Amino acid sequence: MLRRTLTALVLCLAAAGAAAQTLPLPDTLIDLRSDAGETLLHDSEATAAFTPLVSNFITQKTQSYCGVASMVMVLNALQLPAPVVPEYDPYRTFTQDNLLDAASEAIRPQATILERGMTLDQLGAILDLHAIAKVDHAEDTTLEDFRDKARAALSTDGQFVIVNYLRSAIGQEKFGHISPLGAYDADTDRFLILDVSRYKYPPVWVEASVLFAAMNTPDSDNDNRSRGFVRVRPRSD
Amino acid sequence: MLRRTLTALVLCLAAAGAAAQTLPLPDTLIDLRSDAGETLLHDSEATAAFTPLVSNFITQKTQSYCGVASMVMVLNALQLPAPVVPEYDPYRTFTQDNLLDAASEAIRPQATILERGMTLDQLGAILDLHAIAKVDHAEDTTLEDFRDKARAALSTDGQFVIVNYLRSAIGQEKFGHISPLGAYDADTDRFLILDVSRYKYPPVWVEASVLFAAMNTPDSDNDNRSRGFVRVRPRSD
Repeated sequence: MLRRTLTALVLCLAAAGAAAQTLPLPDTLIDLRSDAGETLLHDSEATAAFTPLVSNFITQKTQSYCGVASMVMVLNALQLPAPVVPEYDPYRTFTQDNLLDAASEAIRPQATILERGMTLDQLGAILDLHAIAKVDHAEDTTLEDFRDKARAALSTDGQFVIVNYLRSAIGQEKFGHISPLGAYDADTDRFLILDVSRYKYPPVWVEASVLFAAMNTPDSDNDNRSRGFVRVRPRSD
Repeated sequence: MLRRTLTALVLCLAAAGAAAQTLPLPDTLIDLRSDAGETLLHDSEATAAFTPLVSNFITQKTQSYCGVASMVMVLNALQLPAPVVPEYDPYRTFTQDNLLDAASEAIRPQATILERGMTLDQLGAILDLHAIAKVDHAEDTTLEDFRDKARAALSTDGQFVIVNYLRSAIGQEKFGHISPLGAYDADTDRFLILDVSRYKYPPVWVEASVLFAAMNTPDSDNDNRSRGFVRVRPRSD
């Protein structure tokens, strides 16, 4: 049985390697690049975040930098005044090399982020240095509340949502992860995750209930508080 | 008069700096992130390239790497077998650090690309190492032919178009540039440029005739042959 499973796994990985660079998706997730995924995007109403975010879509720089990459996307999508980048002088932009500073160091040292990423609360606290960030732990709220808040934000220009969830709970490999949401489709009750580990997975449409359950999981790095989501908007809003 | 122009320029730059990190656009270009830009995307028929490309949208690594960044986007969008990336092990993807190799070095040395980018012909030749790449110089063709070929490619899964044009001819700062096309809208006869210098400009919708004129400009680095476009598709196609 184990051998058969391993054989299937190897075949599966081989097929994925031949056809694509990203891992195969479970049937429950819809690849944005598929016909079904494009139709959802076309028919979705809550898409205010989509073009600002995909215009600033990046790949996390290391396998622990999902939180940093997600913040960089949102801060650039907000068009906030950004730091200087020597290579781009005189132009400015947030990057995964210039976002972290003395203030973020006090929240979560860069060395620790490089080692094992960051928690939902640290994500919110670092974002709050640049914008207004509201953290909701899934365990403190409900699916309905998450859906309402996220849909409202994704329907409003200049508002963004970043989710912190357990990958294995949505059928992906494997641990805690952070990425921005790109849109919501009411007919199918699915959110679009703009996954920043682009070497591993494409953007996917996931059912709200599945995503909420994946956020409602304990994070051992955060005193077993549950994961959740952060809403971000500019201070001047 | 000069002083008034300079004052206006300074005010303009100051306003841009306060409100956004990218440079202001001329009225002739439509920002993808604007309501008008999003409507064009929604109404466009030739969008097969859009989700694969924005799923792999990147920022050029240096101010001369527009060609390298454009190639990386297209090769990842094609889901071709990619090189190993140490930071992402065991996952693989094309990056601006692993695309150039001994074969590309014989076409255009990396040191020269870092100094002053690459020509249309070199872009086509390096792409041809990985896929089937067809180069058209604008001076050898017509607006109608460009429109037909680019629209056909952008309507077909697994086909992509990269354009090489003079920025100043479309009202941007300033020199020769390279970026992939993301879509075509027939009603307004506009192409979407997914500009890889994202620290400088957002994706823009440009009229086909304006883009063609900007491609039909001599490149002093290429014996004054005109700029143009490259169509890319996988070998197995």
